[in-house]
Amino acid sequence: MNPILVLGGGPAGLSAAGELAAIGAPTLLVERESYLGGNPVRWQYSLLAPDLHPAEDVMGPLLRRVEGSASIERRLGTTLVSAERSAKGYRVGLKNADTVETREVSAVILATGFDHFDSRRKFEYGYGRYPDVLDFKEVEKMLHEDRIVRPSDGQPPKRIAWILCVGSRDVQVGNPWCCRMGCVVSIKQAVEVRQKHPEIDAYVYYMDIRTYGLWEDLYWKSMQDHGVKFIRGRIGQVTLAEGGSRLLATGEDTILSRPTEVPFDMIILASGMEPSAGTRDVASLFGLPVGPEGFLTPRESDLNPVDSGIPGLFLAGAATGPKAIPDAVTEGMGAALRAYQYARD
Amino acid sequence: MNPILVLGGGPAGLSAAGELAAIGAPTLLVERESYLGGNPVRWQYSLLAPDLHPAEDVMGPLLRRVEGSASIERRLGTTLVSAERSAKGYRVGLKNADTVETREVSAVILATGFDHFDSRRKFEYGYGRYPDVLDFKEVEKMLHEDRIVRPSDGQPPKRIAWILCVGSRDVQVGNPWCCRMGCVVSIKQAVEVRQKHPEIDAYVYYMDIRTYGLWEDLYWKSMQDHGVKFIRGRIGQVTLAEGGSRLLATGEDTILSRPTEVPFDMIILASGMEPSAGTRDVASLFGLPVGPEGFLTPRESDLNPVDSGIPGLFLAGAATGPKAIPDAVTEGMGAALRAYQYARD
Repeated sequence: MNPILVLGGGPAGLSAAGELAAIGAPTLLVERESYLGGNPVRWQYSLLAPDLHPAEDVMGPLLRRVEGSASIERRLGTTLVSAERSAKGYRVGLKNADTVETREVSAVILATGFDHFDSRRKFEYGYGRYPDVLDFKEVEKMLHEDRIVRPSDGQPPKRIAWILCVGSRDVQVGNPWCCRMGCVVSIKQAVEVRQKHPEIDAYVYYMDIRTYGLWEDLYWKSMQDHGVKFIRGRIGQVTLAEGGSRLLATGEDTILSRPTEVPFDMIILASGMEPSAGTRDVASLFGLPVGPEGFLTPRESDLNPVDSGIPGLFLAGAATGPKAIPDAVTEGMGAALRAYQYARD
Repeated sequence: MNPILVLGGGPAGLSAAGELAAIGAPTLLVERESYLGGNPVRWQYSLLAPDLHPAEDVMGPLLRRVEGSASIERRLGTTLVSAERSAKGYRVGLKNADTVETREVSAVILATGFDHFDSRRKFEYGYGRYPDVLDFKEVEKMLHEDRIVRPSDGQPPKRIAWILCVGSRDVQVGNPWCCRMGCVVSIKQAVEVRQKHPEIDAYVYYMDIRTYGLWEDLYWKSMQDHGVKFIRGRIGQVTLAEGGSRLLATGEDTILSRPTEVPFDMIILASGMEPSAGTRDVASLFGLPVGPEGFLTPRESDLNPVDSGIPGLFLAGAATGPKAIPDAVTEGMGAALRAYQYARD
């Protein structure tokens, strides 16, 4: 059997490759970055929401299973540059540095993931101009190292605000969809800060709190056990206050129906999820349909969530929309099973 | 190989059994009801949120694949009454009417699902007392048959309200968790009503609208294209008005910060999701850990979402928490793959 190509080495791709190896299918894992692990490794995620497992305890085993397998051929720093149907599967071109190699593969799993919204595009929040306005993916590393300080002066903050839906649910920036993870990850960050530094006050500005299903438990606990404060409102802009030493969040409290203007030492933006460059590339290479948001769409979204609808082409993880890690892992399993059946038959 | 036991014939169980058959594993599918299909069939779901696919187009193929397979032994009206570890898998007792049969199985997939919250427990909304207060699962059948009338007098309603979070996010009734599907299914119902009967006004009372990820699109469309109206507020009680011919919803509008009292012709309750009786039974039979909500919990919720942590015992679908149909289908695939690997090794 020609190998099954898994494109993307984040949680979904690692899960798919690991399961294919376990079932005995030769696997070719291709990742455009120089390392495996995707966004959780790239941004050094700290604890995972909502169960507060250290990210290493999840990514570590996923990575080791793939790295320890003799039946998985790994290609890092490699991109897919061409793809055409062949007798049974696909003939693909893989580019590493200046070399392009052609390979025959029996099926393809697209696990090309997401990118975080570039918060500089939400100009009015000052990200990139004010050093103490941070993106929440950068805060993961600070939490991981337990070094919660203001980049401007190295001092610990007294009061932190999280602004949800930055580049999400926002027609103005062209992203009307919800990033799904912004609420729960921000709440998790606020809990992590309060657990380690109860002297820091934590405020969350939101439109709707979307801790769906059993995630609600973390929302309750964040208020009752950790004293995180929630303000339903839209922050219109962030400016400098007090001679430039603090930040001022200005907007409307939509429960009290009145303007709000509060100084903070640090402001953390919950940036949205967008289709990654790799996801956009494969959509174009394979001529795959995408939804209005630019994510890949299964042809039968309810009945066959991991099938592209094109023979031999399967989907897993955030390439089809914002997703939590366990969902990406499970989709990796589903796509592995379907691809294996296809390649074997 | 002894068969793999799939317990539960809803979307997750049908998916698991179908995939096991496809990969060549003998399968024993056990369902306590007299029919397959789970809640979607029991309640005759109309269109599925958010993509508005007819439920038959999803459940039909899932059912036909299982019913047409020679390698799936189906047992309806049958419950699991005992389970003990055997040399390789489990020895289980299956009860049908008065007969108990003992079988050896090589692995077990628990796909025992959820039950809807009994809305009579939310006494103040009058469900069970006022005929025009309906549970949203009953409305699916009305939508399916396009027969939207008031049970009290057979007349079409002029104005309908949906009350979200009935038996969800409610410490008073002992269900603090979110049902995950209530927002999107209610919005879908309101869209379905407005598409078929634009003369009917549709109002949705909510705390937070949780159309997470790409589901947000339906929320936007419901307002912009279909004129569904959203009121952030908590309805405290429903009473009779106008000599008993209409219903009065009384509560607080939490955006306008003022009391609200509005007459409606029909009120639809978005009832929550609870662990099913079958889910509670298997937790006790297998000595499985359950979370504070009573759902089954994977031992490693991020890394191994479909593994119970007990050898040979796998989890899929709403047995582990509220879940949409495509997630249940994908988890069925993941559990099938893991169970197959376990049984084969």
